[in-house]
Amino acid sequence: MRCEVVAIGTELLLGVIVDTNSSWIGEQLALAGIDSVYQVKVGDNFQRIEAAIRQALERSDAVICCGGLGPTQDDITRDVIARVMGVDLRRDEAMAEHIRKLFEARGRTMSPNNLRQADRPVGAEFIREMPGTAPGLLCSIGEKVVYAVPGVPREMKEMMTGTVIPDLRRRSGQSSVIRSRTVRTWGLSESRIDELLTNRMAELDKTGNPTIAFQASGIDGIKVRLVAKCDTETAAKAMLDAEEHQVRAVLGEAVFGLDEQSMEHVVLDLLAARGMTLAAFETFTGGILASRLTAIDGTMKTFRGATVAPAEAGASLEAEAKAAARLASRAFDASVVLAAIEAVGREGHAGGTVLLAAVIGGVEHVELFKFPGDRVRLREYSVISLLDLVRRQLIAA
Amino acid sequence: MRCEVVAIGTELLLGVIVDTNSSWIGEQLALAGIDSVYQVKVGDNFQRIEAAIRQALERSDAVICCGGLGPTQDDITRDVIARVMGVDLRRDEAMAEHIRKLFEARGRTMSPNNLRQADRPVGAEFIREMPGTAPGLLCSIGEKVVYAVPGVPREMKEMMTGTVIPDLRRRSGQSSVIRSRTVRTWGLSESRIDELLTNRMAELDKTGNPTIAFQASGIDGIKVRLVAKCDTETAAKAMLDAEEHQVRAVLGEAVFGLDEQSMEHVVLDLLAARGMTLAAFETFTGGILASRLTAIDGTMKTFRGATVAPAEAGASLEAEAKAAARLASRAFDASVVLAAIEAVGREGHAGGTVLLAAVIGGVEHVELFKFPGDRVRLREYSVISLLDLVRRQLIAA
Repeated sequence: MRCEVVAIGTELLLGVIVDTNSSWIGEQLALAGIDSVYQVKVGDNFQRIEAAIRQALERSDAVICCGGLGPTQDDITRDVIARVMGVDLRRDEAMAEHIRKLFEARGRTMSPNNLRQADRPVGAEFIREMPGTAPGLLCSIGEKVVYAVPGVPREMKEMMTGTVIPDLRRRSGQSSVIRSRTVRTWGLSESRIDELLTNRMAELDKTGNPTIAFQASGIDGIKVRLVAKCDTETAAKAMLDAEEHQVRAVLGEAVFGLDEQSMEHVVLDLLAARGMTLAAFETFTGGILASRLTAIDGTMKTFRGATVAPAEAGASLEAEAKAAARLASRAFDASVVLAAIEAVGREGHAGGTVLLAAVIGGVEHVELFKFPGDRVRLREYSVISLLDLVRRQLIAA
Repeated sequence: MRCEVVAIGTELLLGVIVDTNSSWIGEQLALAGIDSVYQVKVGDNFQRIEAAIRQALERSDAVICCGGLGPTQDDITRDVIARVMGVDLRRDEAMAEHIRKLFEARGRTMSPNNLRQADRPVGAEFIREMPGTAPGLLCSIGEKVVYAVPGVPREMKEMMTGTVIPDLRRRSGQSSVIRSRTVRTWGLSESRIDELLTNRMAELDKTGNPTIAFQASGIDGIKVRLVAKCDTETAAKAMLDAEEHQVRAVLGEAVFGLDEQSMEHVVLDLLAARGMTLAAFETFTGGILASRLTAIDGTMKTFRGATVAPAEAGASLEAEAKAAARLASRAFDASVVLAAIEAVGREGHAGGTVLLAAVIGGVEHVELFKFPGDRVRLREYSVISLLDLVRRQLIAA
């Protein structure tokens, strides 16, 4: 079963909006075991949208049109699909009423244009989920199918998850279960991970199941992604468990978490479990560490706070970093204190060198780190490395 | 002149990487006055890449292939283009030598695979810019042309700017100058800006030059973008100046800067010009304000620092915010101090309400702001609104 994505909107071609929808849909299709070999972007032009959908229907079994379902005259996806189906576009009165009520309930006045969203090609079905005012469409054309979902990411995602993906799986006769797991790492370079996993990946290539891929993700570390395809949920879980075990055996302590567990989450959890608290003196990282920690709701019991300020000049880099950490320790009365100071141009250090300092239960740990990349990256790498320093000390203790 | 973008790489279809390259290229093409009506993503598959390039050549005058120029067996863009041109792929010995030397100079050992990057379809030219080890290609096919650039954004951009765009403009016989300017605003909603500019936009639609478009950009405010197409640089500048003047007249104080001038830049400059300094007590914004201010190099003369910590409970929200500001003022000895406190659930406030406080030269300004969106956005909107509060006070004084 093959499915093609057609993203519709002139603003996508002009680069005003980056087409993250197609990427997300591509990922969901892959996880559902549906092949996707082309993705096309096309502007708000009737002939060109029509040509794109017709070609997609020729080379694939299913087409997902994303965008062009809004209320304005530019939004013509419904009209084009009716043409491709060779049917009329008719107003659905029940849907029109529903849309009217949505506007009423929100206390907004509806422009008459909004009723265009209640139009439906004869024979097409509305998609059940409707988080906005634009209903999606499910249009069978012979053995094939065209879906239309809005370009608003939240609305698109709800329709994809609730209707499109299950419908595609039903049509493809797929009963297998595809599950993924992301093993999150920090402390090994991408090429080092490649080296360490290369044998295992070659072995897995023989069966193609499970698969391993990895990706550098800045402040979120390097992600190793496992995908398993099995007959049952239980079998998929077992396969992922086994593979995770293998990957952990190879990558060791570099593995800090799974899936959505960020380094911040992991460190805050480790600290909370030990009744410890955290504070920081952010000289080089300038508030990034604090903004990441406070992005997680309800962390202020464990994360006591941070000071963003220049460090006071010390006799050496190390003295300076330790003094900064002591200042934060006094200000916030925390059991773990972090500080990062840029080392470039001092004590003979080249660009990209940062001094990371952690005081954990009174014991000072200072490490000199060298990172590739510009200042933006250097600040991000410093944040995840500081937290990783704490993590490694806590799990070793 | 029409140009189509073909982005090559299976990881793009799988959603592992978001295709920001095509968006960027689309924007550059629009600014160069080159039409781009389709963009296609295709995996690392010979037949499908070939089909995509052939189709693009049928419906457009030029094709930019992005990706697939690396050293691995998956990287087959060169091979496919040779097939489309109907010529052989030959190793260029001068380029092979150049690549060898690049590796030598970086002290890295070169795998023999890297020499594949020196292969060139007979009749194709290498693109002059070469920031990495993968040379780009410029391949004339009759009256039409296929370019190949690497998927690494930095390398792609250098080749686009240095060779591809100038070559496309030469081919299109375009001598006109297209220039854009972004007018940056904060304080008016997107729909309010739409209302205010609608007449002017309708008027401009008649000639299509200049054009106005706007875009909500989170912490970067709402951007109003002007594009002018003229015979000379001077005329384009004059047209943009005149249009900027009109837009400023309509949007008034909401305009805070142009192009790359962020709200942080503008406020830091206003403060520096007055010999004033800034500090913050970041309760709700949790370090985001500081991380934005410190992202700009060398700001620590004006931005003295921030404390990230919970505010101490006060008799009222307002008392609490003022107390927080006073604390920061004492800690950092700054002439302007900012604080933001989430108001939800207190004093009858619903979700999305934030109390913003600024103490400017000893005078307290407190405003209650209500924003749409989730906590992530709320924190970002609070940061830009706090800075905007300072900006408006300073320019009014």
